[in-house]
Amino acid sequence: MTRPLILVTNDDGIVAPGIRVLVELASELGDVVVVAPDSPQSGQGHAITIHDPLRLKKVNLFAPGVEAWECSGTPVDCVKLAKHVVLKDRPIDLCVSGINHGTNASINIIYSGTLSAAMEASLENIKSIGFSLDDFSFDADFNPCKPWVLEVMKYALEHPFESGNLLNVNIPKLPAEKLRGLRICRQADARWVEKFVEGRDPGGQPYYWLTGEFVNNDTAEDTDVWALQNGYISVVPSMHDLTNYKAMQGFKALEKYAVATDMPAIA
Amino acid sequence: MTRPLILVTNDDGIVAPGIRVLVELASELGDVVVVAPDSPQSGQGHAITIHDPLRLKKVNLFAPGVEAWECSGTPVDCVKLAKHVVLKDRPIDLCVSGINHGTNASINIIYSGTLSAAMEASLENIKSIGFSLDDFSFDADFNPCKPWVLEVMKYALEHPFESGNLLNVNIPKLPAEKLRGLRICRQADARWVEKFVEGRDPGGQPYYWLTGEFVNNDTAEDTDVWALQNGYISVVPSMHDLTNYKAMQGFKALEKYAVATDMPAIA
Repeated sequence: MTRPLILVTNDDGIVAPGIRVLVELASELGDVVVVAPDSPQSGQGHAITIHDPLRLKKVNLFAPGVEAWECSGTPVDCVKLAKHVVLKDRPIDLCVSGINHGTNASINIIYSGTLSAAMEASLENIKSIGFSLDDFSFDADFNPCKPWVLEVMKYALEHPFESGNLLNVNIPKLPAEKLRGLRICRQADARWVEKFVEGRDPGGQPYYWLTGEFVNNDTAEDTDVWALQNGYISVVPSMHDLTNYKAMQGFKALEKYAVATDMPAIA
Repeated sequence: MTRPLILVTNDDGIVAPGIRVLVELASELGDVVVVAPDSPQSGQGHAITIHDPLRLKKVNLFAPGVEAWECSGTPVDCVKLAKHVVLKDRPIDLCVSGINHGTNASINIIYSGTLSAAMEASLENIKSIGFSLDDFSFDADFNPCKPWVLEVMKYALEHPFESGNLLNVNIPKLPAEKLRGLRICRQADARWVEKFVEGRDPGGQPYYWLTGEFVNNDTAEDTDVWALQNGYISVVPSMHDLTNYKAMQGFKALEKYAVATDMPAIA
């Protein structure tokens, strides 16, 4: 029997501890190919590299039998290179991204390279899961979440993903006995409230450095943030259709408004 | 009477012809502040700069009275810096991004720095519009679309945006008399089919350079791609909630599956 083919990537870079855990778990379930960034790519969102060439280098960082490549590009670049160059369009049964050091719940899905890589795979009709642990530390303890991550991957391999290929899985930082289970959630409507630290570089020129605070006023029990705060692993089925269907009817007035107006003459 | 405050940005860079057109039109309607990238940022998606400092430099590129800054970061960085540093959290009445040289219809909203900048403003509860012309040329003719862009901006300033703050506006490359009007649309479910051009650099090392073809099999008349192909300007109300609500019920089985299974013991 052929084992399933599992692509592993992340945004913290190929040497991050989180991806080692994911490779170890994925190896229990299938043949693993890793294509991950050669440097940290947090906050890269869905960026792709179009003005520069990309590099791929085979590396020997994981257990025997795990094919691994480091890539000079973004997480989304990694998925594109994995599919078209490394795997030469062989069918991929599952793409897993992470385990991210730090949460990607709520609006973080938009900024996260980890989730954007998973999104890119889902665009290629590959079942895809982004995993994140709510602990930014390089020394984060991934042991408590291992059985759960394994179960979600097993579920993905064994079941069809109807109506969508992408799961955003976030895990609270808790000891094993405190993890209460999985919850299917919606994305909480939270925000980053940013500020910039202003300073002067050694040459005396001003700089601005982004920092911010995650603020959530959406406390409903069906949200991912609620789940995390209450000891659950949150699972948000996610998608690439950004159409705001609810708003379409309201904007119909714009069609009429523009049509009814005499177009001003601009040279 | 105070004039509305309009923030203008883009992803092609502050010297691109498209942003000049947008600044010119916005200046007819309000006080304009420009914060835009100092270099091309196409394909940057929702990337933000967190590991490096950002630079802001005041420039004199537009008509008298237009305050303009070039920024070393991504389009999303520009919006954050505009709000918090340049405008010191003064209320912004409208953010417009573009006019992009090239379409951002369909799935391009995810890769586009132009639209991600507009999305970022919408996250800050600012009415926000991304404009793109379906012509990649630096010498693209923006004259035919000017009256329409002006009308959409006027509409935005004069009407509440209910149920969402973001519009993705794409304009076909047509002479003025062939533009048939505006259509409120949904995002077509199209894809990029990529390939990589492989080569060797002067040092003999292999590289991979992304290229691709836009393929659309979603030909329904309510899509943005259909509108563009039929002479209409497409307007897609868009949003930051990526939850796939349709898929939530189907994944409820995952909750039960994981709970019902004995967790395997992993050290």
